[in-house]
Amino acid sequence: MSEALRGGLIVGQSGGPTAVINASLVGVVEEALRHLEITHVLGALHGVQGILEGDVVDLGREDRATLEALRRTPSAGLGSGRHRLQPGDPERILAALQALDVRYFLYIGGNDSADTAHRVAAAAAERGYPLRAISVPKTIDNDLPFTDHCPGYGSIARYVAIAARDAGRDTEAMRKVDPVKLLEVPGRNAGWVAAAAALGKRSDEDAPHLIFPPERRLSLDRFLDAVRRAYDRLGFVVAVVAETVRDEQGDPIGTAAPEMGTADAFGHRRLAGAAAYLCREVASRLGLRARWDKPGTLSRSSMTCVSEVDLGEAHLVGRQAVKAALRGETDRMVTLIREPGQPYRVSTGLAPLADVANQERHLPDEYLTADGTFVTPAFLDYALPLIGGPLPEYARLRKVRFLGPG
Amino acid sequence: MSEALRGGLIVGQSGGPTAVINASLVGVVEEALRHLEITHVLGALHGVQGILEGDVVDLGREDRATLEALRRTPSAGLGSGRHRLQPGDPERILAALQALDVRYFLYIGGNDSADTAHRVAAAAAERGYPLRAISVPKTIDNDLPFTDHCPGYGSIARYVAIAARDAGRDTEAMRKVDPVKLLEVPGRNAGWVAAAAALGKRSDEDAPHLIFPPERRLSLDRFLDAVRRAYDRLGFVVAVVAETVRDEQGDPIGTAAPEMGTADAFGHRRLAGAAAYLCREVASRLGLRARWDKPGTLSRSSMTCVSEVDLGEAHLVGRQAVKAALRGETDRMVTLIREPGQPYRVSTGLAPLADVANQERHLPDEYLTADGTFVTPAFLDYALPLIGGPLPEYARLRKVRFLGPG
Repeated sequence: MSEALRGGLIVGQSGGPTAVINASLVGVVEEALRHLEITHVLGALHGVQGILEGDVVDLGREDRATLEALRRTPSAGLGSGRHRLQPGDPERILAALQALDVRYFLYIGGNDSADTAHRVAAAAAERGYPLRAISVPKTIDNDLPFTDHCPGYGSIARYVAIAARDAGRDTEAMRKVDPVKLLEVPGRNAGWVAAAAALGKRSDEDAPHLIFPPERRLSLDRFLDAVRRAYDRLGFVVAVVAETVRDEQGDPIGTAAPEMGTADAFGHRRLAGAAAYLCREVASRLGLRARWDKPGTLSRSSMTCVSEVDLGEAHLVGRQAVKAALRGETDRMVTLIREPGQPYRVSTGLAPLADVANQERHLPDEYLTADGTFVTPAFLDYALPLIGGPLPEYARLRKVRFLGPG
Repeated sequence: MSEALRGGLIVGQSGGPTAVINASLVGVVEEALRHLEITHVLGALHGVQGILEGDVVDLGREDRATLEALRRTPSAGLGSGRHRLQPGDPERILAALQALDVRYFLYIGGNDSADTAHRVAAAAAERGYPLRAISVPKTIDNDLPFTDHCPGYGSIARYVAIAARDAGRDTEAMRKVDPVKLLEVPGRNAGWVAAAAALGKRSDEDAPHLIFPPERRLSLDRFLDAVRRAYDRLGFVVAVVAETVRDEQGDPIGTAAPEMGTADAFGHRRLAGAAAYLCREVASRLGLRARWDKPGTLSRSSMTCVSEVDLGEAHLVGRQAVKAALRGETDRMVTLIREPGQPYRVSTGLAPLADVANQERHLPDEYLTADGTFVTPAFLDYALPLIGGPLPEYARLRKVRFLGPG
């Protein structure tokens, strides 16, 4: 047990928002307000950018009802960002923390945020400034190492599972008009979000019928062949495509088709994404009308599909981060550890930030079928407990043929 | 009171699915099973196409639990379609109904479906075949005349209101990275769905900040100017764009930019829609990073955002259609009539199919602001009761600046 370190705590949110990142924030604030050695509880607006620019708020002056409602408010209440540390930034951040008399630096985010927290911790160690820097895991991408899963994932997994099932019912009904539907989902370089589309599937008819994660290169010929075979079997097809899926050359899907739309002014994004391009190929090469849906950022900030398990765990890791800092830990990320056996439950642990930062955990081979177009039962076992209970039941008519009156 | 007409009833679903079209189907079936003069209750798969192709099922053989669960299952349980009547089709449909000993033809759908039902009714009248043809209103587009609103609209209105609010929170948090978000929504030639985005807005900061319905031509210069002014005021902007919005020449937005992506094999759809094109213009001409979300068909088949008011009314119009047919009515669509005063409640009426068919009701001028970029309080008064209760509360931190320790 390290001796008590007296001073302020600052918390920030970083990276893409989630449905539950505010639950982590509330967990941090609630726990911090319980301990006398934490003299003031501050919030950095838009992550470390707020520290660098002096945009810091006093979270001790928020009322209880606001914090309670914030727990079920999606997106990042403090504002988030993607500030990349510039040379000298860790030292500038440290100086600002010192001026604020902050001894506890809690940073809620993903891989890049862990890197930021690590570099601030390193700067503090180098200067001999007593600072406890703890990272709180958060990412829909579920790609942080050392943790069983990431807060934020369970809720987008539930969203995508419901969306895929709804897309299935919609396409099944409209099979005579638009028999192919592509659902484009986020997930950076990992296919965890795309894979989650399978979590609502109960029968061969249920969507999705195909899943294309970024872990596998997508061959257009094999894609079209898989769509054709599913269509021949069922009369309609729903395929889930990760927005970051790449072709056999390793380029984003559709790169070789300049008529797909030019990039934006920043050169980052093509106008029409993977699903739009693949739809066109399905139409022109298979002669099947195809539509695509791209819920985009709606999928990460939806409270209508929140996983109660995810919401609870997000709050838990926030509280545990403060407790770890008070115990004397620093330069660590809180992790979730799945306890063996049933029912599903977790405990928390810690992992060194230096090892977490900038690492990505991809879908392992055992979670994908041999042809890479669907998930295995092992993935379902892993992910089902995270979405917080079964999806609402849908019915399907028996459709007994009528053989004539009388 | 007309005399009892003994025979079978057939029901079909037509046009784009909704979250509540199955509630109408269940309403029809439940009511039909109560009356002895209805000797059998049939379902046509994929609308009149099922009648023409002999794909007819016996709905009397579905069990109670399936029907109960179907009421909360999105999309069309019988399958839907967009079959356009060919010359001779009304007579062929009539012959098929005669062979099935059907005297009651119930058709759940929108404008085109009303036209179909009308032409079948006309063919029956001409041949002297006693048939009662009643149309059950259904369309997310809310563009049917003679009815206060259309079943299906309240639920997509709730979906879009929640989506716009979520997009607002997401964009507000990420304003330092991607300060502009465009949300592309469906709605054919009417802006009812786009307008509904305003139903969750409570403050100037809340999204949406701008709404672009298809009733107004979109001038790119005025669009960019409006986005720039909203950004200057708030630091971020969420604009809702109807997918069918047209430019000042009356062409779909982006038509003049061939690099926006070629049409599909059917020549119907461009790869990148209005929002993608407008995002690019925001980035290149205003220098603001912009993203776009397009939930597409997910918005019409989502049960997570269902309006309980809409669900109840969809069931009601199904039952009332059967009752009207039993009373001797034919060639009519059931309508919803809003009763004067508070609280909100509806009764039902009937409108002649010949007058309904192929008419579209657009957003009236009084529901749009003078500059056409937002809705008026009169629209909110009209639409708020339809979404089935207030949206869940979101919190916003007070963000009291911290002035320094000690």
